[in-house]
Amino acid sequence: MISRRVVIVGGVAGGASCAARLRRLDENAEIYVFERGGFVSFANCGLPYYIGGVISPRERLLVASPERFRDYFNVEVRVNHEVTRIDRENRLVEVRNRQTGARFTRPYDALVLAPGAKPIVPDVPGVDLPGVFTLRLLEDAERIYRWLQDRHVTRAVVVGAGYIGLEMVENLANRNITVTVVEAAPQILPGFDPEMVVPIYDKLAAHDVRLLLGHPLQAIEADGSQLLVTAGGEKIDCGAVILSVGVRPDVTLAQEAGLEIGPLGGIRVNEHMQTSDPTIWAVGDAVEVKDLVTGQPTWVPLAGPASRQARVAADNICGRPSRFPGALGTAFVRVFGVDIAKTGLTEKAAQRAGIPYQKSFTHSASHATYYPGAKPMTIKLLFDPRDGRVLGAQAVGSEGVDKRIDVIAAMIQKGGTVYDLEEAELCYAPQVGSARDPVNIAGFVAGNILRGDVAPAHWDELDRFPEERRPFILDVRTPGEFAAGALPGAVNIPLGELRGRLHELPRDREIWVHCAGGQRSYYGVRILNQKGFRARNLSGGYSIYRAYRRGTPKSNG
Amino acid sequence: MISRRVVIVGGVAGGASCAARLRRLDENAEIYVFERGGFVSFANCGLPYYIGGVISPRERLLVASPERFRDYFNVEVRVNHEVTRIDRENRLVEVRNRQTGARFTRPYDALVLAPGAKPIVPDVPGVDLPGVFTLRLLEDAERIYRWLQDRHVTRAVVVGAGYIGLEMVENLANRNITVTVVEAAPQILPGFDPEMVVPIYDKLAAHDVRLLLGHPLQAIEADGSQLLVTAGGEKIDCGAVILSVGVRPDVTLAQEAGLEIGPLGGIRVNEHMQTSDPTIWAVGDAVEVKDLVTGQPTWVPLAGPASRQARVAADNICGRPSRFPGALGTAFVRVFGVDIAKTGLTEKAAQRAGIPYQKSFTHSASHATYYPGAKPMTIKLLFDPRDGRVLGAQAVGSEGVDKRIDVIAAMIQKGGTVYDLEEAELCYAPQVGSARDPVNIAGFVAGNILRGDVAPAHWDELDRFPEERRPFILDVRTPGEFAAGALPGAVNIPLGELRGRLHELPRDREIWVHCAGGQRSYYGVRILNQKGFRARNLSGGYSIYRAYRRGTPKSNG
Ligand SMILES: Cc1cc2nc3c(=O)[nH]c(=O)nc-3n(C[C@H](O)[C@H](O)[C@H](O)COP(=O)(O)OP(=O)(O)OC[C@H]3O[C@@H](n4cnc5c(N)ncnc54)[C@H](O)[C@@H]3O)c2cc1C
Ligand SMILES: Cc1cc2nc3c(=O)[nH]c(=O)nc-3n(C[C@H](O)[C@H](O)[C@H](O)COP(=O)(O)OP(=O)(O)OC[C@H]3O[C@@H](n4cnc5c(N)ncnc54)[C@H](O)[C@@H]3O)c2cc1C
Ligand SMILES: CC(C)(COP(=O)(O)OP(=O)(O)OC[C@H]1O[C@@H](n2cnc3c(N)ncnc32)[C@H](O)[C@@H]1OP(=O)(O)O)[C@@H](O)C(=O)NCCC(=O)NCCS
Ligand SMILES: CC(C)(COP(=O)(O)OP(=O)(O)OC[C@H]1O[C@@H](n2cnc3c(N)ncnc32)[C@H](O)[C@@H]1OP(=O)(O)O)[C@@H](O)C(=O)NCCC(=O)NCCS
Repeated sequence: MISRRVVIVGGVAGGASCAARLRRLDENAEIYVFERGGFVSFANCGLPYYIGGVISPRERLLVASPERFRDYFNVEVRVNHEVTRIDRENRLVEVRNRQTGARFTRPYDALVLAPGAKPIVPDVPGVDLPGVFTLRLLEDAERIYRWLQDRHVTRAVVVGAGYIGLEMVENLANRNITVTVVEAAPQILPGFDPEMVVPIYDKLAAHDVRLLLGHPLQAIEADGSQLLVTAGGEKIDCGAVILSVGVRPDVTLAQEAGLEIGPLGGIRVNEHMQTSDPTIWAVGDAVEVKDLVTGQPTWVPLAGPASRQARVAADNICGRPSRFPGALGTAFVRVFGVDIAKTGLTEKAAQRAGIPYQKSFTHSASHATYYPGAKPMTIKLLFDPRDGRVLGAQAVGSEGVDKRIDVIAAMIQKGGTVYDLEEAELCYAPQVGSARDPVNIAGFVAGNILRGDVAPAHWDELDRFPEERRPFILDVRTPGEFAAGALPGAVNIPLGELRGRLHELPRDREIWVHCAGGQRSYYGVRILNQKGFRARNLSGGYSIYRAYRRGTPKSNG
Repeated sequence: MISRRVVIVGGVAGGASCAARLRRLDENAEIYVFERGGFVSFANCGLPYYIGGVISPRERLLVASPERFRDYFNVEVRVNHEVTRIDRENRLVEVRNRQTGARFTRPYDALVLAPGAKPIVPDVPGVDLPGVFTLRLLEDAERIYRWLQDRHVTRAVVVGAGYIGLEMVENLANRNITVTVVEAAPQILPGFDPEMVVPIYDKLAAHDVRLLLGHPLQAIEADGSQLLVTAGGEKIDCGAVILSVGVRPDVTLAQEAGLEIGPLGGIRVNEHMQTSDPTIWAVGDAVEVKDLVTGQPTWVPLAGPASRQARVAADNICGRPSRFPGALGTAFVRVFGVDIAKTGLTEKAAQRAGIPYQKSFTHSASHATYYPGAKPMTIKLLFDPRDGRVLGAQAVGSEGVDKRIDVIAAMIQKGGTVYDLEEAELCYAPQVGSARDPVNIAGFVAGNILRGDVAPAHWDELDRFPEERRPFILDVRTPGEFAAGALPGAVNIPLGELRGRLHELPRDREIWVHCAGGQRSYYGVRILNQKGFRARNLSGGYSIYRAYRRGTPKSNG
């Protein structure tokens, strides 16, 4: 009667999704889900907002209860049960009931590992003191919530300015807690390029968040009821510390069972989410997958890929050869109203992977500027200089950022080029777009570069010129804009006067033209090039110049 | 010195964009733009919101002034100048200065027609009375604005419930004007399928808008300072009438010049936007293009295509063989906070084109439901039953609708299938998405249909069964939901009890299963099919049943 016995380790994004899909595909399978923690199917991604009081009551975080698993899916869910060992030879798992201590084994025909990732705990003194937390499980969130509440914490330190760290910053601030952020990298959100995260610095400052960038956590000490955090030579006094320096794949079980581990430390799987043991599948934060852009191994510990991988694993267990083709690393985070998102490669990632790229910066309004409420947005596009294939995009703004990254993600998924972005036919009504959507504009600008209509220059190249060979810098903004702040040595000829003042420009030197955002300077470059000058357009304009300058602040206290 | 002489007829979306691009490509071209109206480069799409007071002052509607055209683009712009004739043999246009009456000719090497479209005026008595308006030009908006203001209009009739009509309804309501809508079609927004527009009916009712559907305008009479509108046998008394029954391509000049006109009444062009005269290009609302999905001629009078066609025309005039590959008809409108959007084919369009399709309805939240503020959204997907190619999508909701349609538009553009939608890797943070984005869910559901995992049934098929051969209707919602309203004759077995009550179901009849939205019934169908029943899932659930019932109300007064 039982078609197959499936055991699933872990009952949240990957495990729960796999169980549900398995049942739909096979009414006769026996399905066990063992979850070490006290909850299955909870919203990890909501935990910071639960702590901040945005999500309440706690029950809202429980997406599907064990009862629902029983009633709808006829799945045996065991919370507080840890799988402690895999016996591959006999196809058994050993399980420990964490409440009773009882141990038992359970046989499987197919085993699914969805154990997720473990928060990294820095190896410095004091990380195990009371009041020092990591955040992964609902229980962690509960503990933090109660600590903040019971101790009336007014000052906290967040160690690590990745997306979970920054979400915690915002939510602590929501509780009127003053926050200091300690981050070893020279920037926040190290998964993004440094110039793209700059708009967030102002927001953090506006919310009285102190940033200590480029300083690893050195130690935590107890000081009466308070904690003293040492970083960058200072001691910061606070009532709670959140460690959010990243996660690593939880491969303990897999490793002990001798399953292959990939170069990035995750369980190695094929496109069917099968491990090196064909009766064992693995999904989610614990596995490495293929990077859709580079074809290389990548590790994308995010919920969307986890849940889709789970579906693929279930399919394959039931004999359907579906595939998980790879991941783009599409990601989004909102910090104090600034939205930042990415898909595909960042510039850092392209450099790491040794992939040739060209880049462009564009600034667009989230919707038609004549309609109230349009918000500025900056898009950085990376593309293949040979054929225009889109390699990656990052966008930052406060409206419509996720939309543009999603469209570009779809394009990358389908092998799209910057020419496809030019042609994209997207929604346009004044409340949500423009006749030329920001995605089109990004495509135009990149296409113009590739067609040779405008040679781009980049601000980061400027620094690499020896002083005497520096290009001539032409600023085509208005005198007012120029007066309010300009590049040292730049010459100002407003675009509208350019045709009449060509004689002021050198013919023997390269001219790098800029304006505020790159558009007027592009118009200028087109004029100059056709009049026999050698001109380049400084991509993204003065605003990207400033972002580069501010992109790697040493400390922002 | 002059490389080529270009004359452009029309100076708004198509004409102005073409002029700007031409100048960037060719600094030595002579470029004339003749615009019959008083303004170039204005935001037609903002006019309703100017009338409603949302956009103010009027100057915000002027995207680029003639001065900007001179200073930035060195383009000769002539407003209030009408091109009255094309002399193809001598490559001349005849121009009339509408202010002085002076006439002159202007030679061209390349001529661009961007005359746009003309509002259709129904052929009934009274349409030329004072107080009866169409809306196309800034001057029209001005006239309406002043009329409403000066006469203190409190009641208005909008004839035609297309997107401009409904935008006018909202904006008149913003001015506390009570509106009656007269529409000849049996639904509002005839460009959408009738069941998709249903959420807007409630909003219109909530704003005291009266709807007369299925009734063409019959006559308008003056009655003292008021107007009497006759439709559906009633006389509606009001202070102003807006005629928004659609537009048609303005092909007067083209036709008189003997240029080829296409089957839909627009100027015929090739992929380079070239008319049947190789020295004449045409773009925008005046032309027909290729439908990207059907390959047939289509007419998409929207600003995005116009502006991209203009760019292609400019390219080709300058010897670059760029192409406008075709249009999807991506469109969006917001009415009283309900967003509705489409891309590709609607069901009506697929039927008209004789294209085989399958369809699915899904309901998703705009973002993770555990995070506050998530809004429901319904997506209707049309796909090729043979290979899963996405043919079209419509979505309605109040948040994130444009995003999902844009992603699907990108997919269609790239020839994507429902399997690609399953795999889409989109932004997920609780504020903007879900681990399974609505786009993924739409893909899953369509994919499941195509893989044969669930046979869909559609509510509109149900009516086609003779009473005695009707399928068995199984409602798997909760007893509470069932009690609150159910299908006549449906049997209620909640999903959670289904496995234990299979004996209550017939094995000799097809069972059509439904729930509220289609998800629980899908789970139910999977159980039933594996237990030897013949079951189908009623796509979209009870909510789509109700939408079908309400989709074609005869009158909604
Ligand atoms: C605070 C926070 C915010 C996040 N925000 C986002 C976001 O906005 N967007 C996004 O895409 N992703 C976000 N994520 C990441 C997302 O939650 C994960 O990518 C996703 O949950 C991974 O799914 P998984 O099934 O691999 O692991 P998990 O969901 O972590 O589930 C693994 C489960 O396995 C259990 N387990 C481990 N070992 C054993 C064992 N031996 N026996 C039994 N049980 C075991 C663990 O207790 C755990 O509950 C966030 C994560 C956190 C912690
Ligand atoms: C109220 C309203 C709301 C709209 N909302 C949206 C929206 O939300 N989204 C969207 O995508 N589209 C919208 N549109 C449609 C969009 O404005 C058009 O698709 C777009 O403007 C078409 O561009 P075009 O250049 O072809 O025509 P137009 O922009 O109309 O320009 C044509 C110009 O040519 C001039 N002209 C015509 N004949 C001659 C002649 N013989 N000599 C000289 N000049 C001539 C006309 O005066 C006119 O100004 C809206 C239109 C209106 C009227
Ligand atoms: C909820 C959870 C148990 C998955 O359950 P699930 O039954 O797969 O349900 P989902 O809500 O994802 O719905 C998807 C299924 O319903 C189907 N479906 C959804 N709407 C439908 C509709 N209108 N008609 C028909 N089918 C529909 C889909 O096709 C899919 O089934 P499939 O995989 O067999 O194709 C699991 O994702 C989970 O535990 N999530 C919470 C934890 C988590 O994700 N944490 C990290 C992020 S915070
Ligand atoms: C504004 C208008 C004159 C077009 O002018 P335009 O100079 O083409 O300007 P846009 O703002 O569209 O910008 C696009 C151009 O700037 C370039 N550009 C934009 N941002 C840039 C940046 N950061 N760096 C470099 N180039 C940039 C684009 O590449 C494109 O140039 P290209 O076509 O040569 O590739 C015309 O669209 C118009 O009149 N619009 C208003 C009327 C209208 O559209 N009505 C209907 C809708 S309401």
